[in-house]
Amino acid sequence: MPKQSPVSRHIVLTSHPSRFGPKPISINWGVSEPIKRGPVIATLTKQTHRNVIGSHSGNYSVYRALAVASGVLQSDHRADLTNTLPVAKIGPHPSWADPDKIVSLDPFGAVVGEVFKSYYEQGYDIRPTIAITKAHINMPELQDAIAKDRLHIDGTIVKPGGDLVVTKAAIEPVWYLPGIAKRFNIAEEDLRRALFEETGGMFPELVTRHDLKVFLPPIAGVTVYIVGDVSAITDPNKPLAVRVHDECNGSDVFGSDICTCRPYLVHGIEVCVKTAQEGGAGIIVYFRKEGRALGEVTKFLVYNARKRQEGGDRADAYFTRTECVAGVQDMRFQELMPDVLHWLGVTRIDRMVSMSNMKYEAITQAGIKIVERVPIPDELVPPDAKVEIEAKKAAGYYATTDVLDENGLARVKGRSLSD
Amino acid sequence: MPKQSPVSRHIVLTSHPSRFGPKPISINWGVSEPIKRGPVIATLTKQTHRNVIGSHSGNYSVYRALAVASGVLQSDHRADLTNTLPVAKIGPHPSWADPDKIVSLDPFGAVVGEVFKSYYEQGYDIRPTIAITKAHINMPELQDAIAKDRLHIDGTIVKPGGDLVVTKAAIEPVWYLPGIAKRFNIAEEDLRRALFEETGGMFPELVTRHDLKVFLPPIAGVTVYIVGDVSAITDPNKPLAVRVHDECNGSDVFGSDICTCRPYLVHGIEVCVKTAQEGGAGIIVYFRKEGRALGEVTKFLVYNARKRQEGGDRADAYFTRTECVAGVQDMRFQELMPDVLHWLGVTRIDRMVSMSNMKYEAITQAGIKIVERVPIPDELVPPDAKVEIEAKKAAGYYATTDVLDENGLARVKGRSLSD
Repeated sequence: MPKQSPVSRHIVLTSHPSRFGPKPISINWGVSEPIKRGPVIATLTKQTHRNVIGSHSGNYSVYRALAVASGVLQSDHRADLTNTLPVAKIGPHPSWADPDKIVSLDPFGAVVGEVFKSYYEQGYDIRPTIAITKAHINMPELQDAIAKDRLHIDGTIVKPGGDLVVTKAAIEPVWYLPGIAKRFNIAEEDLRRALFEETGGMFPELVTRHDLKVFLPPIAGVTVYIVGDVSAITDPNKPLAVRVHDECNGSDVFGSDICTCRPYLVHGIEVCVKTAQEGGAGIIVYFRKEGRALGEVTKFLVYNARKRQEGGDRADAYFTRTECVAGVQDMRFQELMPDVLHWLGVTRIDRMVSMSNMKYEAITQAGIKIVERVPIPDELVPPDAKVEIEAKKAAGYYATTDVLDENGLARVKGRSLSD
Repeated sequence: MPKQSPVSRHIVLTSHPSRFGPKPISINWGVSEPIKRGPVIATLTKQTHRNVIGSHSGNYSVYRALAVASGVLQSDHRADLTNTLPVAKIGPHPSWADPDKIVSLDPFGAVVGEVFKSYYEQGYDIRPTIAITKAHINMPELQDAIAKDRLHIDGTIVKPGGDLVVTKAAIEPVWYLPGIAKRFNIAEEDLRRALFEETGGMFPELVTRHDLKVFLPPIAGVTVYIVGDVSAITDPNKPLAVRVHDECNGSDVFGSDICTCRPYLVHGIEVCVKTAQEGGAGIIVYFRKEGRALGEVTKFLVYNARKRQEGGDRADAYFTRTECVAGVQDMRFQELMPDVLHWLGVTRIDRMVSMSNMKYEAITQAGIKIVERVPIPDELVPPDAKVEIEAKKAAGYYATTDVLDENGLARVKGRSLSD
């Protein structure tokens, strides 16, 4: 027998701005003083307190709903945030007070417990959208780099045994809709409508609650790994290395050889360690945008189409196959990516470990200077990933080696499915 | 100047079952014949064709909406699925025809192009929710296992150089709501209401469209890696090894030493390879359930609370800290996990590479026999991860070594934040 619901309440399908009753605390995006900026409140317990569309934890909000449905979680549970405060101080930076510089995360997300203390005392349920901790990480490739004398143990950044000491931050998406619309040069209304209609009708409030300007989308967020002294990030006299990496589970975890993702990530970490050991800092930004934010089902469909097309997997048809299946070559929207760099206070990157022209353009257009671009060393490119890397170089990716013409690209072939 | 929207149309906030006009093709969940079961249609182009709530690509549907909003994707783009069909045949299995055995994925999701051919010819836009491809993967730890003679190169499964040949599948979530409710022993109506209300009002159709029984939730899916011959999975005379792994980006990718995730995953792959080399097969199931499906922000908050609590990080307070922050110890809902094993046709697992009692119970209660459980070898547990593994063993995880009492647990300590 299914359990019975204890209460039967009226369901409100879609809220509209109310002309009566208390108004929620307003969010004045881009205001430097947190109390004047206002907290992001997505509590599901007090509907009248909510000042955003959506709920916390990105896509994991669906699991939270399952937990409530199945009876293991009280819907009014309030997080006990004792001892959870950041282990490193990040910001505030001038970019935090610029409504155009950060539009896809809440710069105050890590310090809500401090800056909104007075609201907690009044009973508001405010959740951190950023958490900052410390960790030791160890990757076999870094141990190999130590064994081969490319990296050395210094006892502070790299410990004996190859442990790497890092500060790391997890960041949930918090979208300021007018800012997102401006970034894409579209009307806010069109953005709201597409987010509602093109997801099959997710969150009608997107089109009914124009008074709510902030949206917590059900997507995964970003993780930041910082090597070296956090304060070096904003010190103009100290070098900074950055790799912005978009998730690729197949390579990052399992070491699939069809792309350069994990080798390039590891190379990025190596450059970060070296830069930190020179007295600077290194930053790895890890975005959860699997398969160019098309998801892994689409990615695998594209792999099959690439390997099976006439003439086999070829660099000259690399982008076409994705476009046939997905309608676009890429859905990662690097336009939003620099926000996390602004949150960290980055204004100049000495070593940018990326060849992507999309990332380069997004970062430099966001007003961050890039001094040097670091391509992946040739010896780290798996043979089957030559198709990808040559196609990308020909399409405008940064390269220090020769870029192939159309005939050359047609000759760069990947493995067939039967091998 | 923001671009102007070319068309101004009426917005339908919430649909209700229509008494007029054509009804969508119905989905008869658990019916063995695909044409009688009916296709899952989530197209956003023809509203009248839709027979589900939500849209494709899980959480990546939000990026798709951004792509349409920003003008890079035509909303009516239809996938060209040429050459994308699965590279290996999986199913149909008897479990596909049991509406209770599979409730969180569409067993026909990989073969829609074949089984629903007639609907494509009528202009229906049906998308695969599963894609199956082949890959070569290579992990430094596996090369090490070869160097140490724990694994050997056979030329077919393990190639010279340590490349491992795998068949892999990506699976999008497709939830049959009555089945999900039944699995949790709750009323379908309560499930629908919690999914709607406890996400901040996501998809009102959950509560208005009781005629639509299938929901595509905006969460990430599952990846399956198969080592060895796919047909061995269902052969009662051949051994099968399985590891069900829940994503942990910090360890799986970056090798954080606070948990055993990557070491156990790699050990799982090693057991899979050995089992495949004995003529059987090995399966790694990789679920995107970061931080016990609580997300990484919560995870890092918990890390800080663990390391800073009185007495430092201790095995006897391991679960308590998560519960304080999140309200639950775990949100992974292993109840839904065995679906993917049923999709693969698994009925007996000879070597289950997991110590989790929750996974064990979910699998055996789903009617799949587990012959042997394989714990993580002691030497693979990083020193700082002893807190986790001892706490889990004391809480009921499978163990072949001694389980500590309360005093013993209190003595198992992790590193402090300042180290």
